[in-house]
Amino acid sequence: MNVLIQGGGRGIGMALAERALAAGANRLFVTARDPQAAPAHSKLAHSKLASDDRVTFLPLDVTDEASITAACAQIADSVPQLDRVICTAGMLQQGDIRPEKRVADLRQDNLLHLYQVNALGPVLLARELWPLLKGDHKLHFAAISARVGSISDNRLGGWYAYRASKAALNQLMRTLSIELARVNPNGCVATLHPGTVDTNLSKPFQGGVPAGKLFTADHAADCLWQVLDRLGPEDTGLLHAYDGSVIPY
Amino acid sequence: MNVLIQGGGRGIGMALAERALAAGANRLFVTARDPQAAPAHSKLAHSKLASDDRVTFLPLDVTDEASITAACAQIADSVPQLDRVICTAGMLQQGDIRPEKRVADLRQDNLLHLYQVNALGPVLLARELWPLLKGDHKLHFAAISARVGSISDNRLGGWYAYRASKAALNQLMRTLSIELARVNPNGCVATLHPGTVDTNLSKPFQGGVPAGKLFTADHAADCLWQVLDRLGPEDTGLLHAYDGSVIPY
Repeated sequence: MNVLIQGGGRGIGMALAERALAAGANRLFVTARDPQAAPAHSKLAHSKLASDDRVTFLPLDVTDEASITAACAQIADSVPQLDRVICTAGMLQQGDIRPEKRVADLRQDNLLHLYQVNALGPVLLARELWPLLKGDHKLHFAAISARVGSISDNRLGGWYAYRASKAALNQLMRTLSIELARVNPNGCVATLHPGTVDTNLSKPFQGGVPAGKLFTADHAADCLWQVLDRLGPEDTGLLHAYDGSVIPY
Repeated sequence: MNVLIQGGGRGIGMALAERALAAGANRLFVTARDPQAAPAHSKLAHSKLASDDRVTFLPLDVTDEASITAACAQIADSVPQLDRVICTAGMLQQGDIRPEKRVADLRQDNLLHLYQVNALGPVLLARELWPLLKGDHKLHFAAISARVGSISDNRLGGWYAYRASKAALNQLMRTLSIELARVNPNGCVATLHPGTVDTNLSKPFQGGVPAGKLFTADHAADCLWQVLDRLGPEDTGLLHAYDGSVIPY
């Protein structure tokens, strides 16, 4: 099994990369904006699991199309197909960008930036990886989405930019699922809700999380990996929660 | 009744502007990127309905935050509240930008541009108009969306950028509906599916439209105006088709 974890330098992505090795991946590709500086780099370098050139770190910034193209070209030089791709890069706040409490907080540039990071990354990656996804091999192409991206489930409001970017991600992945079904009958495209996970992304918002509902990255990765294990082509194009349930759009 | 039609220079927007006058709007604000050059300008200038300073044309480009702010400031100087706002500006293709048939056609800049035009315009307008939306007056704040923006209804694929921008629009308007409910108990936020309308946007794609299902802009405007007439605060935050049905997200 050849696996690619986009955004695997830390957090859920790093935990998924470790999960892939534990599951016996022959080749594992891990992307990060700056792989040498990523926690996953030092952690996997000292792991027995990572021996024998199983793991390749690649620089990739989802907002930079050239870096996506370059990373994918290197993967295509190494393996003829990918069996599992999980895109994890996501952003809720950074520097001046904060999740909006009110419409008054909306800023066009922030809205565009979150769209670029959260929504566009996975499909631009799919575009470049297409030859490795085609065929008749069993394939999961997944991206971390979020329950708050569900439109029908939205009852609290706020977080405009994040919610919109995740709704758009869900739509892009749904559209991708239809196209992939035409070129790989055993492919499954999935968006995933990991729950609230103890990472940098959720750090400022963990106060309201009920007891037992703040997951470690390792627990979330275990759940999501197992969810994918159970999904076949008949499940393509849906939003799946960590507990296996399907969340309506 | 004070009405604002964003993108009212031509097509469905122009037809909605005429519909507003026929419905007896006291004040009608019509925005367009270049109002003097818009068909609505010459058409309404020769209409009996448009006499007595009822109609004000304002320049507004949804991608230019400063122009949104300026237009809204002028409206706020003229009226204390708005009773119906309909955002119609939308884009499917233009110049080099064409709806994608395949993932190979995706281009990051096109995806971002359609997001800016189709998804962000209405909520940035709402931000600037907020003082005119608050209160307890009956209010409809609507935006033209599209059935192809529905994620669960997506079975054909393709049109990635357009579909994603409309899904994001639906999410942004849903989020807005929750916030508006807190400051105006009689407000209703709606996204609208106009059907396939004979305008510049649909021109290259009318071949597959069944007989009787290609609407004139006047017919679509009539339908949508009547749909809004029937919607109250209990209907807020949903996607409504021209025939009054609700489309799942």
